[in-house]
Amino acid sequence: MVKDKEQHPIKEKKLLVSLIWNFSTELKLIFMALLVIFTLATLLPFIPSSFSLSTSDFRFCISRFSSAVPVNTTTTTEVLPEKKTATELERVLANGVIKRTFTGYGSAAYNFISMSAYRGGVNTFAVIGLSSKPLHVYGHPSYRCEWVPLDPTQDPVSTLGFKILTDWGYGRIYTTVVVNCTFPSTTAVGGNLILHATTGDPDRNLTDSIPVLTEPPNSVDFTLYSSPKKKYDYLYCGSSLYGNLSPQRVREWIAYHVRFFGERSHFVLHDAGGIHDEVFEVLRPWIELGRVTVHDIREQERFDGYYHNQFMVVNDCLHRYRFAAKWMFFFDVDEFIYVPEKETIKSVMESLEEYSQFTIEQMPMSSKICYSGDGPARTYRNWGFEKMAYRDVKKVPRRDRKYAVQPSNVFATGVHMSQNLQGKTYHKAESKIRYFHYHGSISQRREPCRHLFNDSRVVFENNPYVLDTTIRDVGLAVKTFEMRTIGNRLLRTRQ
Amino acid sequence: MVKDKEQHPIKEKKLLVSLIWNFSTELKLIFMALLVIFTLATLLPFIPSSFSLSTSDFRFCISRFSSAVPVNTTTTTEVLPEKKTATELERVLANGVIKRTFTGYGSAAYNFISMSAYRGGVNTFAVIGLSSKPLHVYGHPSYRCEWVPLDPTQDPVSTLGFKILTDWGYGRIYTTVVVNCTFPSTTAVGGNLILHATTGDPDRNLTDSIPVLTEPPNSVDFTLYSSPKKKYDYLYCGSSLYGNLSPQRVREWIAYHVRFFGERSHFVLHDAGGIHDEVFEVLRPWIELGRVTVHDIREQERFDGYYHNQFMVVNDCLHRYRFAAKWMFFFDVDEFIYVPEKETIKSVMESLEEYSQFTIEQMPMSSKICYSGDGPARTYRNWGFEKMAYRDVKKVPRRDRKYAVQPSNVFATGVHMSQNLQGKTYHKAESKIRYFHYHGSISQRREPCRHLFNDSRVVFENNPYVLDTTIRDVGLAVKTFEMRTIGNRLLRTRQ
Repeated sequence: MVKDKEQHPIKEKKLLVSLIWNFSTELKLIFMALLVIFTLATLLPFIPSSFSLSTSDFRFCISRFSSAVPVNTTTTTEVLPEKKTATELERVLANGVIKRTFTGYGSAAYNFISMSAYRGGVNTFAVIGLSSKPLHVYGHPSYRCEWVPLDPTQDPVSTLGFKILTDWGYGRIYTTVVVNCTFPSTTAVGGNLILHATTGDPDRNLTDSIPVLTEPPNSVDFTLYSSPKKKYDYLYCGSSLYGNLSPQRVREWIAYHVRFFGERSHFVLHDAGGIHDEVFEVLRPWIELGRVTVHDIREQERFDGYYHNQFMVVNDCLHRYRFAAKWMFFFDVDEFIYVPEKETIKSVMESLEEYSQFTIEQMPMSSKICYSGDGPARTYRNWGFEKMAYRDVKKVPRRDRKYAVQPSNVFATGVHMSQNLQGKTYHKAESKIRYFHYHGSISQRREPCRHLFNDSRVVFENNPYVLDTTIRDVGLAVKTFEMRTIGNRLLRTRQ
Repeated sequence: MVKDKEQHPIKEKKLLVSLIWNFSTELKLIFMALLVIFTLATLLPFIPSSFSLSTSDFRFCISRFSSAVPVNTTTTTEVLPEKKTATELERVLANGVIKRTFTGYGSAAYNFISMSAYRGGVNTFAVIGLSSKPLHVYGHPSYRCEWVPLDPTQDPVSTLGFKILTDWGYGRIYTTVVVNCTFPSTTAVGGNLILHATTGDPDRNLTDSIPVLTEPPNSVDFTLYSSPKKKYDYLYCGSSLYGNLSPQRVREWIAYHVRFFGERSHFVLHDAGGIHDEVFEVLRPWIELGRVTVHDIREQERFDGYYHNQFMVVNDCLHRYRFAAKWMFFFDVDEFIYVPEKETIKSVMESLEEYSQFTIEQMPMSSKICYSGDGPARTYRNWGFEKMAYRDVKKVPRRDRKYAVQPSNVFATGVHMSQNLQGKTYHKAESKIRYFHYHGSISQRREPCRHLFNDSRVVFENNPYVLDTTIRDVGLAVKTFEMRTIGNRLLRTRQ
């Protein structure tokens, strides 16, 4: 029996061991398999092999190398050339010819500098920016627009961008470009607008894909584009203000025009360095009343275009406020709009309603010689437009026109008028509306009057002038208006 | 005993199960731990987290995204701005002002396009390339040169690059730039020359560091720069050849000038598309004899400069062969150099030895009207310069001068002469050396003669011409020379 007793344990141990062994073998196999799989998966991304580039790698890199470029968004698509070093720049061909190569480094001018993009209808957008001037003169850059709906069930749509060079002939390193992106059909609200800008390099096709607009869902009401009701009747789009401007002149200009254009008007000024602290103080009361908006555009100074990129700036203003105003005015802060006494701005604009655009004739005023009819002391205290009352009668008035447009019909603003609009343009409005130009008065920080006269006709520096008190005559009304509207906060403003 | 027998199995089963359980539990734990670790390791690279960039990432990406840039060599140093998306392009400041931003994308014009760099002495180098034209007109690009010796015990040295704009006023998108890098003291042979090119962006300082020259150890013998002995007496640097050139005209030109300049001369031609197969065939015998070298510069067409970047090309030629020739000539392949019969090119050049440069006056020939003195059949078989023997006597000869230089004194070539050289320039060599210009003859692929005359004076299209057989008279000698030198290989050459 003892044997029996002894036999059993042995058998059982064998059984036990074999069972464990079999069991753990299976585990080992599974475990080894997993080890191999995970190890491969772990090492794969670090192997610099030539497997095709996945989107994730792409974004991963872009996010680190594109200078001022949003993450995951700008890509330059091209055939990658083989690497060259200084010593590999040439080779001798079989026929003895020395094959030379040329390698480009860095960027002297960006392909596109994005300022803004705005929806302009159910299926159309405008992109405003700068691009290399000689590229547009000698090269063949092109633009393609892509709308990527936020709704993943909707496919992106693409269309050819229509390029408008609004300051043609004026650019320096950069020229202003407005790209009109009109899609074949309605683009649902909510999405990203991508501008694909191609330089047209004959050898390689360099394309930058630029996210120019991100439209949140339900952020747009399409009735905006059809409704005749606008937030403002008149909106002023100023061009780039720069230099050491006179606070007093700016004070006079804004007071005059806020009164002139009335309650339902708004003024957009662009600060390229000209709205220094003292100038900002004369604007502050009007900003607080919601009559003035200032855009700080100083950063554009980095990009050398025409006069502080004024064409880009006014085109941004056009498209930004395009459906917020019935009429938009484009003139400078040394210019004063005027309508005959029997008229009002309202009556005049109603009479011009059939036109998409009209140009405004200049009345050139001297900003040196002044009318002293009120006596020297009073003259000194007078506002600029009260004393600078002599009009240059020699200067050709047709020169240097300014203009107003019904912006919903306009696709881009231009030099002295828009050349990209639908509808009629009127050039004979001089009997209804004009502007008085005090050239150079805004940028001198001192008493403007260099010489005083009180005759109705004077000749100064061999140039004939006549006394024209048109603007002077409303001086009191403007001062009173300012006092009533913002009080005496600006009384101590300096020249 | 039966009980006993029955008890055992139960105990043993319990033991067995528990053992297996414990064992497999441990395995499970290890296995789960490994699973977690490897899963993390696997997913890590794909998580767009903001861990800092390692060099390997850097190279990994650069090699995929920098356009024509050698790996690890070009870096654009700048402060990286915070990422922006389309919606973050503006913000409202405390005072109500809307702060606008501007974002640049891509490259419309490279900061610098490197063609070549050559050592020009014990401590001086020349770098030849292209750069954005408006950048140089409106901007303030600058260049710094750095010499990095291969010998690690020697420190790199740095100097300001002197920029020469040799085609000032002629560029389009690109202009030719020659950067003279002269270091304060001798730069030991063997090293890398790095050109640091800065665009001068007022906001950011974008600098591209470009490896322009790799000089192997012991690859230069400094006596080269001081020795009066040169490989050639006369070297011709041709400008960019393009268009559908006439093989026969090129055949005539090269035969004439190889004979004219003699044994110790060499001809460097630059193919911008003009040396097509038929033209190459007329050059091949001379290439095989080592009298002609052709550089294929077609790749420069990608970069839109003045006339196929001819100024870059001739400056490359100047610096490449600067110490290989006593004199260098710059003129075109429709122009034939001539010295009076009593002189030889050798005697003339010796008489001009005191000058670093002299200009050559033009004799404008008609490439339409021909001299038929040999009778129509013979005239037809004549070479171009044998029959185009009528000289325009109205055209102002001073126009369109060509020139020759002693290159060791010259730092850059120019339009119709070099303006960057040391030593005297002579403009009154017309009695010693002239060139006959058959304008337009080279680029028409047909019999040039449109009208035949045999008078000594003719008026054609209201313009007076005189018979001038200066070049015509050497026709037989040139043909004989060609036959003797390369045999009859070119007999069947077509217009």
